[in-house]
Amino acid sequence: MSDNLSRDLYSALCAIPLIDPHSHIDPISPVSRSLDDILGYHYYTELAHSAGMSQEPLRRETAPRDRVRAILGHMGRFDNTTQYSWFVDIAREFLGFTGERVTVADTDALFDAAQRAFAQPDWEKQVFAKSKLEAIFLTNEFDDSLDGFDASKYIPCLRTDSLVFHLDKPKIRERLADATGVQVGDAQSLRKAIWKLFARFKAKGAKACAISLPPDFEPVRIADSELDRAIKALAGDSTLAKAVFGGVQFAKSIAGTASHADESPLAAVSLGVFWMLAEHCREFELPFDLMIGVNRKVYEAGVYQGQDLFDRRTSLIKYRDLFNAFPEVTFPISVLTSGQNQELVAYSWIFPNVIPNGHWWYSNIPAYIRRDLGERLQAVPKTKLIGYYSDAYKLEFVLPKYNMYRRVLAETLADEFVRPKRFSETEAVALGKRLLRDNVREVFGV
Amino acid sequence: MSDNLSRDLYSALCAIPLIDPHSHIDPISPVSRSLDDILGYHYYTELAHSAGMSQEPLRRETAPRDRVRAILGHMGRFDNTTQYSWFVDIAREFLGFTGERVTVADTDALFDAAQRAFAQPDWEKQVFAKSKLEAIFLTNEFDDSLDGFDASKYIPCLRTDSLVFHLDKPKIRERLADATGVQVGDAQSLRKAIWKLFARFKAKGAKACAISLPPDFEPVRIADSELDRAIKALAGDSTLAKAVFGGVQFAKSIAGTASHADESPLAAVSLGVFWMLAEHCREFELPFDLMIGVNRKVYEAGVYQGQDLFDRRTSLIKYRDLFNAFPEVTFPISVLTSGQNQELVAYSWIFPNVIPNGHWWYSNIPAYIRRDLGERLQAVPKTKLIGYYSDAYKLEFVLPKYNMYRRVLAETLADEFVRPKRFSETEAVALGKRLLRDNVREVFGV
Amino acid sequence: MSDNLSRDLYSALCAIPLIDPHSHIDPISPVSRSLDDILGYHYYTELAHSAGMSQEPLRRETAPRDRVRAILGHMGRFDNTTQYSWFVDIAREFLGFTGERVTVADTDALFDAAQRAFAQPDWEKQVFAKSKLEAIFLTNEFDDSLDGFDASKYIPCLRTDSLVFHLDKPKIRERLADATGVQVGDAQSLRKAIWKLFARFKAKGAKACAISLPPDFEPVRIADSELDRAIKALAGDSTLAKAVFGGVQFAKSIAGTASHADESPLAAVSLGVFWMLAEHCREFELPFDLMIGVNRKVYEAGVYQGQDLFDRRTSLIKYRDLFNAFPEVTFPISVLTSGQNQELVAYSWIFPNVIPNGHWWYSNIPAYIRRDLGERLQAVPKTKLIGYYSDAYKLEFVLPKYNMYRRVLAETLADEFVRPKRFSETEAVALGKRLLRDNVREVFGV
Repeated sequence: MSDNLSRDLYSALCAIPLIDPHSHIDPISPVSRSLDDILGYHYYTELAHSAGMSQEPLRRETAPRDRVRAILGHMGRFDNTTQYSWFVDIAREFLGFTGERVTVADTDALFDAAQRAFAQPDWEKQVFAKSKLEAIFLTNEFDDSLDGFDASKYIPCLRTDSLVFHLDKPKIRERLADATGVQVGDAQSLRKAIWKLFARFKAKGAKACAISLPPDFEPVRIADSELDRAIKALAGDSTLAKAVFGGVQFAKSIAGTASHADESPLAAVSLGVFWMLAEHCREFELPFDLMIGVNRKVYEAGVYQGQDLFDRRTSLIKYRDLFNAFPEVTFPISVLTSGQNQELVAYSWIFPNVIPNGHWWYSNIPAYIRRDLGERLQAVPKTKLIGYYSDAYKLEFVLPKYNMYRRVLAETLADEFVRPKRFSETEAVALGKRLLRDNVREVFGV
Repeated sequence: MSDNLSRDLYSALCAIPLIDPHSHIDPISPVSRSLDDILGYHYYTELAHSAGMSQEPLRRETAPRDRVRAILGHMGRFDNTTQYSWFVDIAREFLGFTGERVTVADTDALFDAAQRAFAQPDWEKQVFAKSKLEAIFLTNEFDDSLDGFDASKYIPCLRTDSLVFHLDKPKIRERLADATGVQVGDAQSLRKAIWKLFARFKAKGAKACAISLPPDFEPVRIADSELDRAIKALAGDSTLAKAVFGGVQFAKSIAGTASHADESPLAAVSLGVFWMLAEHCREFELPFDLMIGVNRKVYEAGVYQGQDLFDRRTSLIKYRDLFNAFPEVTFPISVLTSGQNQELVAYSWIFPNVIPNGHWWYSNIPAYIRRDLGERLQAVPKTKLIGYYSDAYKLEFVLPKYNMYRRVLAETLADEFVRPKRFSETEAVALGKRLLRDNVREVFGV
Repeated sequence: MSDNLSRDLYSALCAIPLIDPHSHIDPISPVSRSLDDILGYHYYTELAHSAGMSQEPLRRETAPRDRVRAILGHMGRFDNTTQYSWFVDIAREFLGFTGERVTVADTDALFDAAQRAFAQPDWEKQVFAKSKLEAIFLTNEFDDSLDGFDASKYIPCLRTDSLVFHLDKPKIRERLADATGVQVGDAQSLRKAIWKLFARFKAKGAKACAISLPPDFEPVRIADSELDRAIKALAGDSTLAKAVFGGVQFAKSIAGTASHADESPLAAVSLGVFWMLAEHCREFELPFDLMIGVNRKVYEAGVYQGQDLFDRRTSLIKYRDLFNAFPEVTFPISVLTSGQNQELVAYSWIFPNVIPNGHWWYSNIPAYIRRDLGERLQAVPKTKLIGYYSDAYKLEFVLPKYNMYRRVLAETLADEFVRPKRFSETEAVALGKRLLRDNVREVFGV
């Protein structure tokens, strides 16, 4: 930190226990078992590959130690990045690393240190303690078992991408039938199945429903009869599908325009299921996390989880019908690009049910966090700002990612609130606590 | 202010008398009559509502003091915002408030202080003096009376949204007939009516024509014969309308593409009237203020004036025909989003008749002002930069809003010009004066 | 520079010899012959014109000294701009100017000083030495002579705009026939002609192929048979053209959508030629510089080279097919707007063959450079960052433009790397050297 005030604020913010409102943690295996789990995180495999590493070392057959060596061997090419800084933080905080820079020469020492550290029987507990982590949200498939873990620490969250975008796949419909006992064949059975999912998740302590959405998605309400025909078409009779969904006509009929739909039963089902999810969020009083803007599999030959990019030309105006139709549902919104932050600020300033949520993926680096956070703090009520989530796959990432965020937050509070004498230091820390903790508790009812 | 240089520059900038080139002031009732007028400003009702206040207190039946209490009761939820800072400034500058933070406990004291202050017979004069305000532009409906006030202090400006977008409403056509004595039934009578409006406004001292435009608006010239048919259709024979405007054909015929028009007579009339306004700006030598990018009534259940948002996917390329067709007309351009600022900078750098105008609405907070101003100052001739306007509904807002702007301007001049030794302090203040005053005088001929 | 650390870094960066990877230098006449060559640069004529100068002084008949006087006479209106700062730098570095500000009163002194300086027989050598310039890339038309200059200092680069976008013009087809001895009449002869161009350029030391692209361009592969028909249509039989390319049908057939093509043979040829160029970049192992986002002749009455603007609504998603199809080709990408920088960062982070290239045109001012550079440094491997190119028309511009960039780079390294103790000063300078020199050498094989 560059100055005393920021340092003091940073220390104070670090003392606040965290509730992390979005991650991909597996509650059965929440911590890393080897350094391979850390460096296998797609942020590292992507950057190593982008900087010239072949995908050879990423194959299953490669020994973990060799894979780690390969990635560390390329790290010198991206030691300028924020992602590299996270890794150095992990090495320092969890592996006793004391050097200035991590290089390939550290492979064995770090790998072995990780083996020792991660093998400790109370490692999970240690990570929780070091990270001052109180609870962390999961990302659960609709048919995930929600047993075998403490749901007050690992908070279930119903992730719904597959329901909305992949109901054309027989495998998904089967899994849905297995999970609910309902064979989905029309709008009514679909509603029944979804109700059962929500009921189970709610009973198990779920605090949110969530989904990631492509940039061209535009939720609109479609008639039950349309949804009915679309599901029937998907689920079975392809002749009917052709007959019902042929041509521009259909897409126009469902929303008055063809732009949001692919003139296909799947598009209609996507719209129908999405709307139905919002209705269940209302009924079960769950916030609906929308993560807006990702295109899947853009780099087809990319590494695992390193294939997704985006089209920045998207707008929250597409969600106007949704926000208007569900005033009782809170929508924590993540946007993929900083360019969309001003819309997020303005929509949150106007709509009571729209709130900004963290800094997602390609926007999760200090340059964008600083800018987006600064804008949000100037124009959105502080009670509506969910500051950050880790998006972590392993618990060891919670600490370095939150540290990055807290550094930016501390500097922003120093520059924008304390130095201009708008807030005292105590008030600034209280504002930080709102973003880091209080709002998570209030919005999600934790 | 964080340093001496910025403070000095700020002081010097505060000494420059203001001509505010855009507001919604009612010249007959320019100042507030109670604190309710201040906190009834949509920025406060929006934020209070967005932060959880029901619209109950905003009903006409609620006593003003109770409404103020309700809004102040929610202000603690948005005391991080710039809008809150404006209010604290107003309380300090005009109401003798000396505390650190305004809370609901201050309701009665502030309400009563406002009653006393605003009741002073020379209050308007005091506000002018305290704000160093010399003159302020109005926003006049085409049939506003322009009598009963001093047009050298309250400068008329012909606002044309209703003419361009609502000529399908019989009420608007009636009002136009009343204002001009011309019953509009075709292109020729429309031209006559508009000429009369301009002649009257010009005679009364108007210095600009203005309009706000939705993000998908794309001005193109349409043939008089098309406009003629469109007006006839709007104004009367709906059978004719159907016949003339059916289908894609028409929209394509007016502009070679269907993208900008809704294939309707209203769309054609909008294009025709807009173009005609530009022609009259040329004839009457008035700048044409374009405020680009607002979608009306997005949040349908929002508070009064708190329903409008935007689609950030818009571009100045839509205005290429207009800028090329009217080299004699100056177009002061406001854009709604900071994301469009680079276009505004580039178009102003290239087109002699395009100039950047202030920081509008959702971009009117320091985060965006700082960025947009910095970009403009690096690449647009200084003689073309209109720095700021208040957009105020009551005169008491001119001072806090300009103070916010002057703070950003002072810091920008310090960081970008004086410290790198590009300008002396005197030169930097002169540059600030250009933005605050000189260019307003030159561009609008005040 | 505002502090010692930045100053030290700046000095160290200034000592690094430059290889400038993009310019419009004429190797036969690389330096200015009079001050008119300096101030005739479109950045000055544009700003003078935009600030009110008529185009009268820009006519060929005007004496150079008078033209210079006219432009200097308007410079006081844009002495706030970065472009003005470049000129002051040139006056100081090359013309012995010692004043604070350049005004019209300096016309004769500067003009005469320029005559003396530029007339020195070793002027070119002096400019190279003062600028620490080692080599500079050219922008060559496909039929440029590549003889008569030292290709290790003036590195040829095949610019392909005319091949992709103007093959409908008989003049271009004639020039292509003259340059290659191949009369292009179908896909096969086109391929042969392009192969010959690449072979000649490669033999003469070319290190890149380059093109500038409009914002709506979307490269897709079209079938050879389609290209064949399109070329035949362009090259000759217009009846056939009509027959083949009539209506929406064709455009849809080539890419499944009409959005990227104008339903014309030219659009099909553009797609076909572009794809063929990428194939030859692969075969000849040349990077393919893409400069994305310019619309030509937007301000129709603008000064020479001062008519081009843009539609910011564009996305790298349009290039997904290209990036996927050519993993062996490196694509150094320039984007016209800072708003597209996050896409450039993300695509470079994911795709091994996509790399960010400099700061182009309307983004070539410190406000955008600072922001874009900061983002790139946080998330793109340092081995993939080509920091800057001058885009200069005369060698005298290399120095002031690189100075501007080095100032921003020095401050960014100080603020983001050295002060937070992520890098030592030595490491920071090495990082700067990567951006300024090493990556140019490695990417282009210089």
